[in-house]
Amino acid sequence: MIGREIDQLIALLARLPGLGPRSARRAALYLLNHRDQIMVPLAESIEAAASAIGPCSVCGNLDTVDPCSICADEARDRQSICVVETVADLWALERAGSYRGLYHVLGGTLSALDGVGPEDLAIPKLISRARSNGGGEVILAMNATVDGQTTAHYIADKLAGSGAEISRLAHGVPVGGELDFLDDGTLVAAMRARRAL
Amino acid sequence: MIGREIDQLIALLARLPGLGPRSARRAALYLLNHRDQIMVPLAESIEAAASAIGPCSVCGNLDTVDPCSICADEARDRQSICVVETVADLWALERAGSYRGLYHVLGGTLSALDGVGPEDLAIPKLISRARSNGGGEVILAMNATVDGQTTAHYIADKLAGSGAEISRLAHGVPVGGELDFLDDGTLVAAMRARRAL
Repeated sequence: MIGREIDQLIALLARLPGLGPRSARRAALYLLNHRDQIMVPLAESIEAAASAIGPCSVCGNLDTVDPCSICADEARDRQSICVVETVADLWALERAGSYRGLYHVLGGTLSALDGVGPEDLAIPKLISRARSNGGGEVILAMNATVDGQTTAHYIADKLAGSGAEISRLAHGVPVGGELDFLDDGTLVAAMRARRAL
Repeated sequence: MIGREIDQLIALLARLPGLGPRSARRAALYLLNHRDQIMVPLAESIEAAASAIGPCSVCGNLDTVDPCSICADEARDRQSICVVETVADLWALERAGSYRGLYHVLGGTLSALDGVGPEDLAIPKLISRARSNGGGEVILAMNATVDGQTTAHYIADKLAGSGAEISRLAHGVPVGGELDFLDDGTLVAAMRARRAL
């Protein structure tokens, strides 16, 4: 546009999810027009986060300490491991606030198409964690997609005989959901898993 | 969420136009997962832009040099000043590539409601620029909104008798526009300003 610095800033902003070339230009101008309130603090914040935050060597969560604050929290149920695809899923479950056990972040799903095998994910680590946990619960909280459920089945197979109790999230009508707008698969799952009132 | 650093990063990202709290979380995770490719370069790029880029003292454009590279470009038509509301509008006209004169960035529009008067914008500076330009052209390229057109009329009034030739952008059917989807005001303007083929 006008200079190398602005062009580079726009190009980098445009690579963030949710921002395209046009909104990256708007964001760059907004930054330049709010230098002291946002631009300088944002640069410092990104730098601080980049140097301070890293993956937990136990569960794969992102934190400033290793093991992460969830793995280190003695008040949590250490017999329970909730397996999620990504840190975003872990954050979502933490926001929901009903689960008080530990986590295990796989880093994705198995995918024959993309050439992602078990050794590309944190699956071997999960198996050894579950084995050493002896008799605890492993909750498979993968997304309800084909890849997510394939990965869940693979892990369930691998954990068979390890002594771990294996469960998965319930499928059904989302809270606030209207039947008319739900897909058939969800309705079938909700009907099958109906509960006595 | 998990730590002060991440919370602060998400809060700052959420203030960018086009990003809300949810997309700011996604962007923060994306940054943390692409540390070397994007996160560190982005922090450096924001910092470089913040320290290198400032407003041009002549026209208000943003650039690393002052006067800006447009004001300093001797190949441009120095008799023509195109008045725009914001730097984003200047960029849009530069992308279009048909204008080869100078610019003047007002920094907004007059607005009685928001208490924005002529002295809050670069209007006095524009008047003196146009006067010293003697007989050049002033193109009023404000947005076709009520505030934009009010500002254009105010400036046209102030420039009357300065010797400057005053023009405004044409109103009409946008290229690629379908009549059926255009508002009545645009159709009336396009009909009134029809041209012989």
